[in-house]
Amino acid sequence: RINGDRLWDSLMEMAKIGPGVAGGNNRQTLTDADAEGRALFQQWCEAAGCEMGLDTMGNMFALRAGTDPDALPVYVGSHLDTQPTGGKYDGVLGVLGGLEILRTLNDLGIRTRHPIVVTNWTNEEGTRYAPAMLSSGVFAGIHAEDWAKDRVDAAGKRFGDELKRIGWEGEEPVGARKMHAFFELHIEQGPILEAEGVDVGVVTHGQGLSWTQVTVTGRDSHTGSTPMPMRKNAGLGMARILEKVEEIAWSHAPHAVGAAGHIDIYPNSRNVIPGKAVFTVDFRSPDLAVIEDMETRLRTEAQAICDDMGLEVAFEKVGGFDPVTFDPGCVQAVRDAAERLGYSHREIISGAGHDACWINQVAPTAMIMCPCVDGLSHNEAEEISKEWSTAGAEVLFHAVVETAEI
Amino acid sequence: RINGDRLWDSLMEMAKIGPGVAGGNNRQTLTDADAEGRALFQQWCEAAGCEMGLDTMGNMFALRAGTDPDALPVYVGSHLDTQPTGGKYDGVLGVLGGLEILRTLNDLGIRTRHPIVVTNWTNEEGTRYAPAMLSSGVFAGIHAEDWAKDRVDAAGKRFGDELKRIGWEGEEPVGARKMHAFFELHIEQGPILEAEGVDVGVVTHGQGLSWTQVTVTGRDSHTGSTPMPMRKNAGLGMARILEKVEEIAWSHAPHAVGAAGHIDIYPNSRNVIPGKAVFTVDFRSPDLAVIEDMETRLRTEAQAICDDMGLEVAFEKVGGFDPVTFDPGCVQAVRDAAERLGYSHREIISGAGHDACWINQVAPTAMIMCPCVDGLSHNEAEEISKEWSTAGAEVLFHAVVETAEI
Ligand SMILES: NC(=O)NCCC(=O)O
Ligand SMILES: NC(=O)NCCC(=O)O
Repeated sequence: RINGDRLWDSLMEMAKIGPGVAGGNNRQTLTDADAEGRALFQQWCEAAGCEMGLDTMGNMFALRAGTDPDALPVYVGSHLDTQPTGGKYDGVLGVLGGLEILRTLNDLGIRTRHPIVVTNWTNEEGTRYAPAMLSSGVFAGIHAEDWAKDRVDAAGKRFGDELKRIGWEGEEPVGARKMHAFFELHIEQGPILEAEGVDVGVVTHGQGLSWTQVTVTGRDSHTGSTPMPMRKNAGLGMARILEKVEEIAWSHAPHAVGAAGHIDIYPNSRNVIPGKAVFTVDFRSPDLAVIEDMETRLRTEAQAICDDMGLEVAFEKVGGFDPVTFDPGCVQAVRDAAERLGYSHREIISGAGHDACWINQVAPTAMIMCPCVDGLSHNEAEEISKEWSTAGAEVLFHAVVETAEI
Repeated sequence: RINGDRLWDSLMEMAKIGPGVAGGNNRQTLTDADAEGRALFQQWCEAAGCEMGLDTMGNMFALRAGTDPDALPVYVGSHLDTQPTGGKYDGVLGVLGGLEILRTLNDLGIRTRHPIVVTNWTNEEGTRYAPAMLSSGVFAGIHAEDWAKDRVDAAGKRFGDELKRIGWEGEEPVGARKMHAFFELHIEQGPILEAEGVDVGVVTHGQGLSWTQVTVTGRDSHTGSTPMPMRKNAGLGMARILEKVEEIAWSHAPHAVGAAGHIDIYPNSRNVIPGKAVFTVDFRSPDLAVIEDMETRLRTEAQAICDDMGLEVAFEKVGGFDPVTFDPGCVQAVRDAAERLGYSHREIISGAGHDACWINQVAPTAMIMCPCVDGLSHNEAEEISKEWSTAGAEVLFHAVVETAEI
């Protein structure tokens, strides 16, 4: 049995780094707070006797040796970066849950045949640098490393430069490691488990995602002296497209969702009709055909709206992944663990994207979910109970140790 | 006759300070570029033999003495600050047109009975610090000086601190000066004069304006894992309100306009449903009852939209002024000047707000407009011809000298 109090204390300790404005966290990737969080995690791992690894994308690896020199390691982990107004558990639970496994094995004096490696993947959230899950994506061979390092944030700072600046660029080539399996524990970030009073979600699939950045171009002009018929209001064009996004997503509900979380208008002055609006539409579904349909309709409808208004519109795909089916063997290991431990459980589809979605392409992978209050995440008020985190980490422990073999 | 080439050269010289990205200017108020523009203007005024004054709001006054020690000065001027993506003429023409009057009087060796003072009013544009026409408003007793100095920009910097920082806070009390009359030359910023091929606009009225800042509050949550029915999308609420703004303005067209030029959403992350949207609605009309009707409908409709969506909404009036009727005597002086000089002219209502709209409350005031290409302003591509600026400045010269008496 893992030590639920110790895990909880570590979660609270980590949450002190990069505090938010409303009780949560702002520990965005490649900031000074991210560096501080990494240092604390490394210190804890070293105290647990791990050998640390760091690759050229800043992905961290804490290895606990196994007994069989030929056995590939079982990997477990998630991410320590947060949204700008993020919660204390999104990602962090999966990393510190992994660390808790190693601490428990140490307490029990158990050695596994396969080594166990706890990971912290760089830039999972994708707020500063789109797309999300950037560095697990490079690890899995989805993105080229050079391309990833050339991503720029809103202030024009390159990912590669910021990684160097905070001192967490390693030398190990990305993706060189081979995995026996990968497990990720994560909060659900949705309402299902809590509503049904279920302890543990056995994640069988992940929704697919598409991020389309839309740029609507009109003409800056004076809000007072430009007659209504002469206006080319890019902000109004955007408003009409946002209404369509809602309509398109609802047409596939409950098998799809859609929204725009990122909106910038230019020059953003009270007395200037917006000449340009840039925003990112996020569509998701467990069904690839639905995602493709939503994307096509977005482009068609937005083009029609803009043609009608004398605006120009351009589309750029800035992120995305296809729906994921996790490895049946690993999923079974999670289900068996929950069963053995006597936790109520149900199969669930992940609504969010996770590093596990990319790692699934290069190693047998599964995920475990624990409930979160009101299904609320990407909000500083994100909350879970100690019981929920303990249950999730117990199931993680049993699934991992089973797979790593005693 | 004024020297149109000299005026044009000065306009081009000033445009070198705070260059934009597309041929226009970014010389926003209280920036280093603003300070540089002020210094150049002061140097020119001193070279023309003026005595400089500077008040505690940073308003600049360049005085050319008159012959009668008891005669109040005739004031003339506008502003040197620009939009973030502004043109080379908006405001600047009125200030340098004023300077050209003094230079011409010097050339001709003419002394007027009343002194003439050329002004540069601080923060006319209102982009960095709402409301627009802030310092002429303080001069006219509309705003309290302390309140004005407490305005903060998007980076949280106070107006008062920034004025000190750039070194242009004077000691003269604001509004202490008494004026015989005030004249402002400005580009039309609308399409009428150019379309009708008219040289000069005799401005009889100014539209009124209302700026309402709307804050829509929903709930930040995950774009992937939050089911559609559980969303409180403040960005979508904003989109629906923007559609209403358009509808409300059109319902009064051509006697009203409406748009939102300023939009910020929070936390502005691609995978977070916006928990908050803040935007400013700009409504204008020459008819006060129309403005009031639009404001009321905005509040009612926005409240209904938000109630329906489970969102909260709050309104704050962040700027505004009632429709303006300029002084018949000053307007007649402008009309007479255009007539005498043989320029085609027509009466016109100003679509934009101007410092003259506030000064009109404390002194007999009128405005002169010259055409601008395609009616385009608040855009770096703003353009006028040398002929237009010459004609406008000639009319200004004659109206001012007539009023200041030789
Ligand atoms: N788990 C999580 O919030 N990941 C961020 C990527 C996404 O947008 O789904
Ligand atoms: N002339 C001008 O553009 N003034 C800015 C104030 C306004 O928004 O009308």
